[in-house]
Amino acid sequence: MAYALGLDYGTNSVRCLIVDTSNGRELGTRIYEYETGEAGIILDPSDHNVARQNPADYLKGVEVTIAGAIAEARKADSKFDPKQIVGIGVDTTGSTPLPVDKNGKPLALLAEFKDNPNAHAWLWKDHTGYAEAAEITALAEKVYPEYLAKCGGTYSSEWFFSKVLHCLRVAPQVFDAAYTWVEHADWLPAVLTGTDAPDKLRRCRCAAGHKAMFNDDWGGYPNAEFLAKLDPKLGKLRATLGDKTFAVDEAAGKLTSEWASKLGLTAGIPVAMGAFDAHLGAVGSGIKEGVLVKIIGTSTCDMVVAPSSTKLPDIPGICGIVDGSILPGCYGLEAGQSAVGDIFNWFVNYIQPGGKEAGSHQSLTEKAARLRPGQSGLLALDWNNGNRTILVDQRLTGLLLGQTLHTRPEEIYRAIIEATAFGALTIINRFEEYGVKIKEVVNCGGIAEKNPMLMQIYADVTGREMKISRSAQTCALGSAVAAAVVGGAHPSFSKAQAAMCGIKETTFKPIAASHKVYQQLYKLYKQLHDGFGLKDKSMAMGNVMKDLLTIKEKANA
Amino acid sequence: MAYALGLDYGTNSVRCLIVDTSNGRELGTRIYEYETGEAGIILDPSDHNVARQNPADYLKGVEVTIAGAIAEARKADSKFDPKQIVGIGVDTTGSTPLPVDKNGKPLALLAEFKDNPNAHAWLWKDHTGYAEAAEITALAEKVYPEYLAKCGGTYSSEWFFSKVLHCLRVAPQVFDAAYTWVEHADWLPAVLTGTDAPDKLRRCRCAAGHKAMFNDDWGGYPNAEFLAKLDPKLGKLRATLGDKTFAVDEAAGKLTSEWASKLGLTAGIPVAMGAFDAHLGAVGSGIKEGVLVKIIGTSTCDMVVAPSSTKLPDIPGICGIVDGSILPGCYGLEAGQSAVGDIFNWFVNYIQPGGKEAGSHQSLTEKAARLRPGQSGLLALDWNNGNRTILVDQRLTGLLLGQTLHTRPEEIYRAIIEATAFGALTIINRFEEYGVKIKEVVNCGGIAEKNPMLMQIYADVTGREMKISRSAQTCALGSAVAAAVVGGAHPSFSKAQAAMCGIKETTFKPIAASHKVYQQLYKLYKQLHDGFGLKDKSMAMGNVMKDLLTIKEKANA
Repeated sequence: MAYALGLDYGTNSVRCLIVDTSNGRELGTRIYEYETGEAGIILDPSDHNVARQNPADYLKGVEVTIAGAIAEARKADSKFDPKQIVGIGVDTTGSTPLPVDKNGKPLALLAEFKDNPNAHAWLWKDHTGYAEAAEITALAEKVYPEYLAKCGGTYSSEWFFSKVLHCLRVAPQVFDAAYTWVEHADWLPAVLTGTDAPDKLRRCRCAAGHKAMFNDDWGGYPNAEFLAKLDPKLGKLRATLGDKTFAVDEAAGKLTSEWASKLGLTAGIPVAMGAFDAHLGAVGSGIKEGVLVKIIGTSTCDMVVAPSSTKLPDIPGICGIVDGSILPGCYGLEAGQSAVGDIFNWFVNYIQPGGKEAGSHQSLTEKAARLRPGQSGLLALDWNNGNRTILVDQRLTGLLLGQTLHTRPEEIYRAIIEATAFGALTIINRFEEYGVKIKEVVNCGGIAEKNPMLMQIYADVTGREMKISRSAQTCALGSAVAAAVVGGAHPSFSKAQAAMCGIKETTFKPIAASHKVYQQLYKLYKQLHDGFGLKDKSMAMGNVMKDLLTIKEKANA
Repeated sequence: MAYALGLDYGTNSVRCLIVDTSNGRELGTRIYEYETGEAGIILDPSDHNVARQNPADYLKGVEVTIAGAIAEARKADSKFDPKQIVGIGVDTTGSTPLPVDKNGKPLALLAEFKDNPNAHAWLWKDHTGYAEAAEITALAEKVYPEYLAKCGGTYSSEWFFSKVLHCLRVAPQVFDAAYTWVEHADWLPAVLTGTDAPDKLRRCRCAAGHKAMFNDDWGGYPNAEFLAKLDPKLGKLRATLGDKTFAVDEAAGKLTSEWASKLGLTAGIPVAMGAFDAHLGAVGSGIKEGVLVKIIGTSTCDMVVAPSSTKLPDIPGICGIVDGSILPGCYGLEAGQSAVGDIFNWFVNYIQPGGKEAGSHQSLTEKAARLRPGQSGLLALDWNNGNRTILVDQRLTGLLLGQTLHTRPEEIYRAIIEATAFGALTIINRFEEYGVKIKEVVNCGGIAEKNPMLMQIYADVTGREMKISRSAQTCALGSAVAAAVVGGAHPSFSKAQAAMCGIKETTFKPIAASHKVYQQLYKLYKQLHDGFGLKDKSMAMGNVMKDLLTIKEKANA
């Protein structure tokens, strides 16, 4: 028997999953909620953009969740022995970089910086670097447009260099104290394998390629000269980043005996290179050529792979095209919607239509399910948190249209669900327009599992069958797949996925009559999408949302 | 001492007001809620467009309210004697026509028809005749475009001939039993004065001119040949309508001794010609040249007068320009917004944000009042019930734009109030673009009186001082003004208004800084307004709302 252990660091908690490598059976699992801040996030009431995390929570999570998962696995199978675990895989959120000192120790764990949020991990959804993102985009457009071509044409405030540069500007004492910055996805495997000293550290292809403009075509990370134009100190940081990155089929190192004895595992088992949660989630959902994996949560990640031998064009508006970021030997293509579940949550938690009970997700879903496509006369844009793909514009805002004096909450609820489905279709169409054929769609994440109405709407809107990943914890399962491969239980990702991953029996097939109505509605959605979203001045409405934001910013000044 | 009695027939109730003609003191008032149907309206659950009323309620209302108002006046002033009432004025909703027999008796009061809603009064907001309205518009466009030029270019489903023609089509037995159709505003004064027999009946200028295309330029009502093209029977009805109409400074007749003894009034006192509530509301608010009176309720009526000697152009999108419809010797110009209070009510009653308590008008107003102009980043169109002026398109729908994941109910509430203010400004601008100068704005109606935040927003959006009519019952007061004139207490409307009407001390002056922000927001509102509302194909969004309705209608079919 060979078991694989996957660690999945999410936004508010970390999960450990122990999986039978021969059949994907999930023996034991355990979640640990981060303790610092609100729901594990260090916030700043005076600045909505701040979102930091305490690396101490990441460390405590290792011990708590592995011990818990082992205990559960033992209960599930009396023959289970943690010594049968052959490897560890790790996924984390990202870009979530943290400043570390010369020894690789996070500044946040030093007494001097422990109360300084700038010295902590800068969580993916920290947007404090929005001005720096614009600066990086503007500079790259001028001098290295190829840097942007691989990441959709715009460098995001969520990404590595925006955050590092912002820290340099607002907290120079932190920046100066840091030897380098390390992604959470790189740091955690390095800690477990004792390779966290900067000269030993291996950085993963996934984070570097998708969030830090790493590409072998131009020698890895952006060159020092480019970075120095943003700030000379950033130019100097370039040397600490190295020139090589590693895909998830390689090991970051071997589990140290210290950690092994602490965790009750075998010393020396390999720990796979880390990757982002969505990327390993795609692996856990069985991603392969032709399969789109949609990870549907507060936002979505839409993941596709194409063999590295393919001659792929740049695809405008796609978040990243990175060789080896999802599966070794394949380009990983990442797209996504900036908000999906978050929009439904906004409506339920902020608007609270009819009060808390009548306006619950459950109650609204029940009523919305009784409506026919097109019946409400409503149409919405899914832009309450901007548009990640294909417009790459975080400053776009929501829109609801068609309301009368009789419009009811459940109609609005359904309209925003439909809007996210239209957004999903727009992404699928973009892939296909550029020659990346989508033959199959596999969904995962809580919303996909728990809301059959939503899945049916997605099927009806896209005209495609919606499948759902069998595992309820696909990210951790994907980490376990990587663990199984580096641990030698399977010779390749495809073999490991075939053994360990699968889809649920129930799928959602498009209903022809509904699809026909949604095709008409989608035409109108696309008209609004292009009219309000394209920067092209010939579109009548392209200025409206931005002008409103300018007015809003002045009103708040 | 001379007192005037005003009767004001609203949508759900009738009010009587007894006023001192020398100073406008309101001595006694009484309301009677109609008893038939829901809140006085006969509805049809299978057809939202149906809204009928029982003329028996109108009759009972006379006795109950006059007796009640007299009792209250006696309490207020022991010297008051109902014999001091010198005249009666009447306003009603409209167009609210009812079918009557050869003797002028409403069919609804005959045993044969008492349970047939088609034989009752067709309340102003009955929209069952929408197809007939389109048919009348199309025909007039072809053969008599001048008919439409005076009523904004589109004949409405709310108006006289749409309703009569629809009845002819769906209830021919009712149509055939009717000798003619009479507006509520004509019928009630006729009943009180015993002039309800068709050969004695006087029809008022206000209803005929605004809702039935009456104009002396083409010999009164549309000609029989035109009406016969819609249906030969409608052509025959033309002869029963007469060729003359009368303004409110004339009497419909004298109070019969029968009614006088029933009511405790002096037999033979004059009853003024009726008019619509908004028109006499404008009178009660002191309308004169240069004054815009806004009657703000579930919808608004925006009333302006211009001397009949003026050479007025046709003003596109204005509901009607009728000589003598508000003040004798003046053109009455009517504009309006299809929904104002109704949109706020929709948000509070249908969406119920935060539940019933948190989502009350009061609670939302308190929170919304703390927001600065532009601060929410939201912008809305006030079209949940279509757009009456200036687009004349009942099928337009609402729009909300700018919402994020943090948008709160009070921000939406404020945005829809602002939207109605932008709609109000659009109407003012349209008047002025066509040479009708607005020097002063006087508001009346419950919302104007009770919501200072809304009034301040209106001042800030329009950049004009908002004044509020002194009386809380301006329609009834306007009827009393007409009563005072026909009763001889004053020689003219202007003298009567000067004595009896006034504005409140508190007014709302525009705050320069807010006005500046709203000027920017208005530009964007106008862009959305024109983009979604103009039928001009060059606008990018002109099709969206209509295409959605087509999809909706099919989904509901």
